[in-house]
Amino acid sequence: MKVSLLAALLCIPAFTIRADEGMWLFDQPPRQLLRERHQFDATDAWLEHLQKASVRFNSGGSGSFVSADGLLISNHHVGADSLQKLSTKEKNYLHEGFYARAPTQELKCLDLELNVLQAIEDVTARINTAVPKDADAATAFAARRKIIAEVEKESLDRTGLRSDVVTLWEGGAYHLYRYKRYTDVRIVFAPEQQIAFYGGDPDNFEFPRYDVDICLFRAYENGQPAKVKNFLRFSAAGARDGDLIFVSGHPAGTSRQITLAEWESHRDQRLPYYLGLLKRQEVLLANWSARSEENARRAKDDLFGVQNSRKAEDGVIAGLLDPSMLSAKVRAEEDFKAKLAGKPEFADALAGYDKIAEATRILAAQAVRARVLEAGQGFNSASFGIARTLLRAGDERPKPNGERLTEFSDSGKESLELELFSDKPIYADFEMLTLADSLTFLVEALGVGDPLVQKILAGKSPRERAAELISGTKARDVAFRRRLYEGGAVSVSAANDPMIALARLVDADARALRKVYEAQGEVKQQAHAAISRARNSLLGTTGYPDATFTLRLAFGVVKGYEDAGKQVPAVTTFAGLYERAQEMKNRPPFDLPPLWVKRKSSLNLNTPLNFVSTADIIGGNSGSPVVNRAGEFVGIIFDGNLQSLPWDYAFSDKQGRATSVHSAAILEALDKVYGAQELGRELLNGRRSK
Amino acid sequence: MKVSLLAALLCIPAFTIRADEGMWLFDQPPRQLLRERHQFDATDAWLEHLQKASVRFNSGGSGSFVSADGLLISNHHVGADSLQKLSTKEKNYLHEGFYARAPTQELKCLDLELNVLQAIEDVTARINTAVPKDADAATAFAARRKIIAEVEKESLDRTGLRSDVVTLWEGGAYHLYRYKRYTDVRIVFAPEQQIAFYGGDPDNFEFPRYDVDICLFRAYENGQPAKVKNFLRFSAAGARDGDLIFVSGHPAGTSRQITLAEWESHRDQRLPYYLGLLKRQEVLLANWSARSEENARRAKDDLFGVQNSRKAEDGVIAGLLDPSMLSAKVRAEEDFKAKLAGKPEFADALAGYDKIAEATRILAAQAVRARVLEAGQGFNSASFGIARTLLRAGDERPKPNGERLTEFSDSGKESLELELFSDKPIYADFEMLTLADSLTFLVEALGVGDPLVQKILAGKSPRERAAELISGTKARDVAFRRRLYEGGAVSVSAANDPMIALARLVDADARALRKVYEAQGEVKQQAHAAISRARNSLLGTTGYPDATFTLRLAFGVVKGYEDAGKQVPAVTTFAGLYERAQEMKNRPPFDLPPLWVKRKSSLNLNTPLNFVSTADIIGGNSGSPVVNRAGEFVGIIFDGNLQSLPWDYAFSDKQGRATSVHSAAILEALDKVYGAQELGRELLNGRRSK
Repeated sequence: MKVSLLAALLCIPAFTIRADEGMWLFDQPPRQLLRERHQFDATDAWLEHLQKASVRFNSGGSGSFVSADGLLISNHHVGADSLQKLSTKEKNYLHEGFYARAPTQELKCLDLELNVLQAIEDVTARINTAVPKDADAATAFAARRKIIAEVEKESLDRTGLRSDVVTLWEGGAYHLYRYKRYTDVRIVFAPEQQIAFYGGDPDNFEFPRYDVDICLFRAYENGQPAKVKNFLRFSAAGARDGDLIFVSGHPAGTSRQITLAEWESHRDQRLPYYLGLLKRQEVLLANWSARSEENARRAKDDLFGVQNSRKAEDGVIAGLLDPSMLSAKVRAEEDFKAKLAGKPEFADALAGYDKIAEATRILAAQAVRARVLEAGQGFNSASFGIARTLLRAGDERPKPNGERLTEFSDSGKESLELELFSDKPIYADFEMLTLADSLTFLVEALGVGDPLVQKILAGKSPRERAAELISGTKARDVAFRRRLYEGGAVSVSAANDPMIALARLVDADARALRKVYEAQGEVKQQAHAAISRARNSLLGTTGYPDATFTLRLAFGVVKGYEDAGKQVPAVTTFAGLYERAQEMKNRPPFDLPPLWVKRKSSLNLNTPLNFVSTADIIGGNSGSPVVNRAGEFVGIIFDGNLQSLPWDYAFSDKQGRATSVHSAAILEALDKVYGAQELGRELLNGRRSK
Repeated sequence: MKVSLLAALLCIPAFTIRADEGMWLFDQPPRQLLRERHQFDATDAWLEHLQKASVRFNSGGSGSFVSADGLLISNHHVGADSLQKLSTKEKNYLHEGFYARAPTQELKCLDLELNVLQAIEDVTARINTAVPKDADAATAFAARRKIIAEVEKESLDRTGLRSDVVTLWEGGAYHLYRYKRYTDVRIVFAPEQQIAFYGGDPDNFEFPRYDVDICLFRAYENGQPAKVKNFLRFSAAGARDGDLIFVSGHPAGTSRQITLAEWESHRDQRLPYYLGLLKRQEVLLANWSARSEENARRAKDDLFGVQNSRKAEDGVIAGLLDPSMLSAKVRAEEDFKAKLAGKPEFADALAGYDKIAEATRILAAQAVRARVLEAGQGFNSASFGIARTLLRAGDERPKPNGERLTEFSDSGKESLELELFSDKPIYADFEMLTLADSLTFLVEALGVGDPLVQKILAGKSPRERAAELISGTKARDVAFRRRLYEGGAVSVSAANDPMIALARLVDADARALRKVYEAQGEVKQQAHAAISRARNSLLGTTGYPDATFTLRLAFGVVKGYEDAGKQVPAVTTFAGLYERAQEMKNRPPFDLPPLWVKRKSSLNLNTPLNFVSTADIIGGNSGSPVVNRAGEFVGIIFDGNLQSLPWDYAFSDKQGRATSVHSAAILEALDKVYGAQELGRELLNGRRSK
């Protein structure tokens, strides 16, 4: 015991960083690791350029600027949300693709917000100082919410930049992130979904893979293409097997530093619940889609999202049920606790584990009710979301900034209004479908006998009630939303809207559940902060915190892997795409778009199409640029393989790989398939032709 | 109170039979109802002929003889099980269809058993007398099991006929059913699944409908076509709008006479659990199917079954969550209880409600564990089923007949062996898929920490463990099965088969759970018997018991219905089929088989294709003959509409309808599409041409 403890104190780093693990903070990059392992010097200039060329899609995803004229690239499946909202029965951009041959043809997205990280500031001390030491959890939470709102507002007022205080290390640190914001974003090019997501759900998360999963946008300012200083030079050669590459993107969330108690709760409660819900929704949407082409179009993006999450989470749970992953987790926690034991200065850290376990138990007991009522999973419809936002905006906006529900804080106002007043289509039939099913789920989850359930159903069956609510609400009318939002609580009450009445009916219970989450979340953050301090003190401050949908740097090598005794090469080609189509007899989802059949002979079939690397990524990294040592764009992340799915909880590059579209494939497809030479030139020259 | 009680005693029938409700016993037919409502006289001869022409498919379904030479007809989706088992990668009968132009080409089914009801005998008194009055539930169950096994064995020995004691009225009566058994059954004709199940899952349970859901078989005896005295004459004209029709088939089960406590338990526990499992399996099978054509072929029949059940049960739960259905149930039970109150002679019936409620609570508390371990839902694979049967056969067969688990009783031996030694293909990859998923489900359902779960997983992840079990077991080898079955417990132990070891590992827990089900089932049966006696005494003995997969007579009228303000006509035509295909752009599952495209011009497009009627049916009725007053075959049941789905719990013909293929469509398709003139002649002549 003593020897190993001594060894730990002397030489074992904070994490045993295996291979190319890590989603590193841009202000705490793994300089030493890169130098030692890859003989690469990550200079400040190199990092700043990459940071400022990286783009966050607020709808969930990553991207990067690729020309001085505001051109930026992400994945098709990141752009799909915007494409879906712009599509109609007559014009289905998702299915047909899109190319603006002239700037005037570019399609303005309805509610897309992009963020570009400008600066990071550590505000941990300021936040923690404002939280009284021995307050109860609810008071501490209120104080923390207040100071965070204050810091954000102050920064917004001073800089005009979007300002978010981000919780890192599960509560160990608080950083202020300032972003330049773009809300006039236009679609320049999208391929057909059939080639972007070639192989559909069956090939999703698989490799070898053959997807042209890209979408090009242009950011505008004051009605003109944004002038961008930091953009990535496009490499025509692109990534090669064995190359060191970097990924700069926005992994949405990981759970690598949670305690064993939290880990077990995810495995035993959260994930099974979530998977059950996803499979329920998948069956609902898939079967509704099969009833007509127009149904399929309306449900397309939602169905993709559900299937994508389902396949990912099925992979995650398979990982969590692998005893070797559990025993590694158990061992790591036991070892670290052993280091804390008997040391008064780490007593709070050691006690933190028990506090987290207790808070986890409390939350688990409320979880289903909270998800159904407060997270709104019992009222699955855009209309309910709008109705609740209007109701709560009326109640929250008159309060002081620091006392509001966080989504109504001044710093979040612009983003909230962009979404609330979006002109996106909301289809009554689709709303009834999802609301009826989720009301049925609510009854199952909370019980027919629950008094609130009885009030929610109002003496009707879920189907009848859903039909009545969706027919009766005016939530689909943007002018109505504006009027109520601006008129405040009085207008909201006067509107007598049945969906708002439903939101009001559940609001007391929903808010009470949220308070439990806030208070227990505070307990966990404080406990994690203590553990974090102990770790820094014992093991130094190296490492990287769990992902938080903030900009991170990952690195790795373009590299194949062995699967079931066979070597899987790192790179696929267009030739492989056509072979796959033939092998699968062009049966959907392995059919090729007509243009790809027609232009086959024009293509250089040896062009690299997709490739895998050992870079550490997760959901949210979709669309992240892959750059080489020179900082050039050599590819774009769009997926991970099946073996990467448990990365949510622990990284391993034994077989796990990140999957990218190769830069050469993008150029070749634009040129030979789509006749988009002008766009290809902009990528190669880094600016539009005059 | 008094008046209504008096009214009840004087004139209100046992059930308020609404409209054409009822799944009537053949020995207690609704003669009076038919006479009064439809001026039809159901003579003994008419009934006996229909009874003996009706066929039960032991695999789950109904059918009828339609020629003196053993030709019989059922649904394609009933025959699908046999077609799937006979298909290979090279020859997919399910997809391509099949027609034996000569008797020698007829395809012998691997493990199909048909039953034809010969006689019914009421054995209630004999069964109940053998059960000691004041014994505890377990003892009473054992006594009941023993006497049932005895009655069955005695009948089998005496008559050579399959002899089943059937529990009716949830325990109110016990009838001995004797069947002629056919186990040499050959497929004569099956259309392509694409026309049999035209419109697939999206159009399943919908109307208007356009399916040629038929399959023709021939029963053999001693290697020769069976000579059949009772068969149905095929009507070329078939059913017409407004006609009185009869359905003779085997509804598998309904829950109309359960108590409110049981009803609520179905709604709150059983159905949500079952639907969750179905949706989980649908996602699993659909996505595995999408990965390759061969996967799709292997999973086809299972996927159909899962989707079919899921759509049905979604409809059932929608019905149960309709407050009007609940209030009708509540009122009926309250009214009847009011009639019992204060009457010492009905005290046991009144107390029965509480006993049933208590038993239902006990069962609900054990239900998940029982389903996972004893019903085997945690080990979803053919191999596990075989392994468990071998293990238990070794343990059970040496016991006296009346003390064995019921499935090992002497009277069930022939059926059990037919299934156990079936040469049906079992695919290792498919087995691993379903076993891995169900082991994951087992972990979720029982918890990782459960000691038995730990032993089941044996230190491996569900996927690893499934792969190891399926690779290691010899259950797929029929010779191995025979050897172990014949060698008994010693051979079973000596085999050291890992899947049998797994079955043994869970057997003590599984059997213990089964004992709970047996004992509480006995409690419920006794309580229902008391309620049943009170009902007979108060209201007379008219009415029909819940469905039990025994032969029932339903009747109704060919009749359209109103839906969303529009009148849905009762009959569709071939013209409608081609219009539907065009409307849906021939997109799967609305594409037509090539032969149907080619032969369109030969068809009389005005031929009736499908029709709806008010006959009371449920799952298991699939393939039931629809006959007219003359007892002629005018159609074949294959489905009910969406509004019929809650019929499981309560009948209503406001919109609910049974759906049939019209006899004229069958003749027209055989003649014009398939060139099966010989078969058409046999149907019209009632015998093969010489």
